Amino acid sequence: MTRGYNFCSGPAMLPGAVMQRAQEELPDWQGTGMSVMELSHRSPEFVSVLEGAEARLRTLMNIPEDYAVLFMQGGATLQFSCVPMNLMSRGGAAEFLDTGAWSVKAIKEAGRYGETRVLASTKDEGYRRAVRADEFSVGADAAYLHYTPNETIGGVEFNYVPETGDVPLVADMSSCILSRPINVEDFDLIYAGAQKNIGPAGLTLVIVRKSLLGEVMHDTPSLLNYKAQADNGSMVNTPPTFAIYLAGLVFDWLEGQGGVRAIEGINAEKAALLYDAIDRSEFYRNPIALEHRSRMNVPFILADEQLNDRFLAEAGEAGLYNLQGHRSVGGMRASIYNAMPLAGVRGLVDFMKDFEQRHG
Amino acid sequence: MTRGYNFCSGPAMLPGAVMQRAQEELPDWQGTGMSVMELSHRSPEFVSVLEGAEARLRTLMNIPEDYAVLFMQGGATLQFSCVPMNLMSRGGAAEFLDTGAWSVKAIKEAGRYGETRVLASTKDEGYRRAVRADEFSVGADAAYLHYTPNETIGGVEFNYVPETGDVPLVADMSSCILSRPINVEDFDLIYAGAQKNIGPAGLTLVIVRKSLLGEVMHDTPSLLNYKAQADNGSMVNTPPTFAIYLAGLVFDWLEGQGGVRAIEGINAEKAALLYDAIDRSEFYRNPIALEHRSRMNVPFILADEQLNDRFLAEAGEAGLYNLQGHRSVGGMRASIYNAMPLAGVRGLVDFMKDFEQRHG
Repeated sequence: MTRGYNFCSGPAMLPGAVMQRAQEELPDWQGTGMSVMELSHRSPEFVSVLEGAEARLRTLMNIPEDYAVLFMQGGATLQFSCVPMNLMSRGGAAEFLDTGAWSVKAIKEAGRYGETRVLASTKDEGYRRAVRADEFSVGADAAYLHYTPNETIGGVEFNYVPETGDVPLVADMSSCILSRPINVEDFDLIYAGAQKNIGPAGLTLVIVRKSLLGEVMHDTPSLLNYKAQADNGSMVNTPPTFAIYLAGLVFDWLEGQGGVRAIEGINAEKAALLYDAIDRSEFYRNPIALEHRSRMNVPFILADEQLNDRFLAEAGEAGLYNLQGHRSVGGMRASIYNAMPLAGVRGLVDFMKDFEQRHG
Repeated sequence: MTRGYNFCSGPAMLPGAVMQRAQEELPDWQGTGMSVMELSHRSPEFVSVLEGAEARLRTLMNIPEDYAVLFMQGGATLQFSCVPMNLMSRGGAAEFLDTGAWSVKAIKEAGRYGETRVLASTKDEGYRRAVRADEFSVGADAAYLHYTPNETIGGVEFNYVPETGDVPLVADMSSCILSRPINVEDFDLIYAGAQKNIGPAGLTLVIVRKSLLGEVMHDTPSLLNYKAQADNGSMVNTPPTFAIYLAGLVFDWLEGQGGVRAIEGINAEKAALLYDAIDRSEFYRNPIALEHRSRMNVPFILADEQLNDRFLAEAGEAGLYNLQGHRSVGGMRASIYNAMPLAGVRGLVDFMKDFEQRHG
């Protein structure tokens, strides 16, 4: 078996140790004679899998008891509807910071459900930085403020948490959850598609302050009602059981790495190594403001765009996969989530230097 | 490895051959150096997985080109909202046949989105039969007629397809899809949670006549818009890639069994064997009308309910798992979907006879 280094923005690389354990346990989980995916979701065995995953996540992120942890489906895109459906019934506009493609999608989708206000946007600057704290103030009557702490496509990451006073703060952490310590109590609702730092696509994590749960908009499907999901232990219906199991294995692996504080150190080292290689070169370039560069998604552009295809082909031959940038940005992008080992980034940097020497 | 016979109603047993292949391919799919779950959903490799699964399903079910096949999330429960959101914008009431617990859930959820009418119900008879064709007539102005061809909890299955004229016919086939041949053109919309006859929980299949797609209700999330999903090849966002891959393996396995016509023969034999054992005994009993007995879910009650726990414990020791009935029905239930081999049902019947001899 030869496993390469997969720089895909998501579905992303998972830890090799998790893949190995999942493989061993696939047809017969802990002597049950069944795969985890064949267990009844209401069986004591699967309930222990789900509760174990939740408990590990609570420890890793230090999630207080007055927050619910929900295992849902539909990715961030469905959360773009769930959030207003669950939080706008009390009235007030949904407010947004616009820092890139994923902010835009969240804003557009929320528009179906009530008034939206974009408090600040970096669109006119090509989304090359995050919004700064002095560029907006939250309306006292707002239903919530929504932002995207890390923009996966642009490679832009906030270096602070917005202050919203009594207005609930909602964060789409799909591409940065578990990558560095946060204070959960700074947020009222955190959501994340699993397929970057948590597990396979098809699972969505929601962490929500319980006091926010209650009335929802009239048209809200039962499955998308946070309170119903919280009251039913994420089992309003059959949850994506195998994906939850895999998330639990990833959380277990992350504990073994020393937790979020330890992985932050590795993530910082990986990002510094790659940005340093880019900045030292005239051949590669990253356009994002230094203080807002993402630790998870590193876009870079070749001075000669005609070399893009050759770069990707040679990288693939070297076992460095999925480095093409998003079509809206062009160039390259290296997504270096928790599961990307330092060795993978070292391999990429070495390859980049070698490629530059041969073609620069 | 000892894999038992799992009679769970869902998540259900999957074919052993599928589990074996998934295990082999888990960490490195076809020399890519990645698991299927680590592939970009937009990569040619994964697109081929998805398109291959769709093509196999189209062949197995003989799905005409003017029907879209969608890979969605959220299970039947989310479809209970998706169907009205997508089909009620043209006006007209949603009409229903009520034959059990899953019908009731579908009716209740649709009530959020417009007028609902229950044309016929067998509730007063304890849901011990399906509705007969002469007991209802569809309103000419109806938005659609919804029914549940197989009620998983009650073990009740329709032995005919309702005639609805020009009114769209919608069927929740979660627990009977692919179990016997159907004429897809008799239906306008078929949906099914995957976790019974298709694959793991977290994937939902929708087969919809394309001419029905268009305007949706205002509050419909993009992800739940059938037209948007059809226009984007089920990739409005990242689909549940690993579940789709597994579904493709199951479809492949089913082809290898000889397809739906062949599996129908085996399913009929399995059901006959089990119902025969029940009917020949005074110790076991199934209350459902003979002509409406389900081939997929076979509830049975012990004459002495005090023996239930012993029955379940001894069955488990014999490698016959998850036979407890739904709490609303009591007794036992054997779900004998496509992946349950004839040998499993033989094993169950032998065990039942032996148990009766010892305790009857």
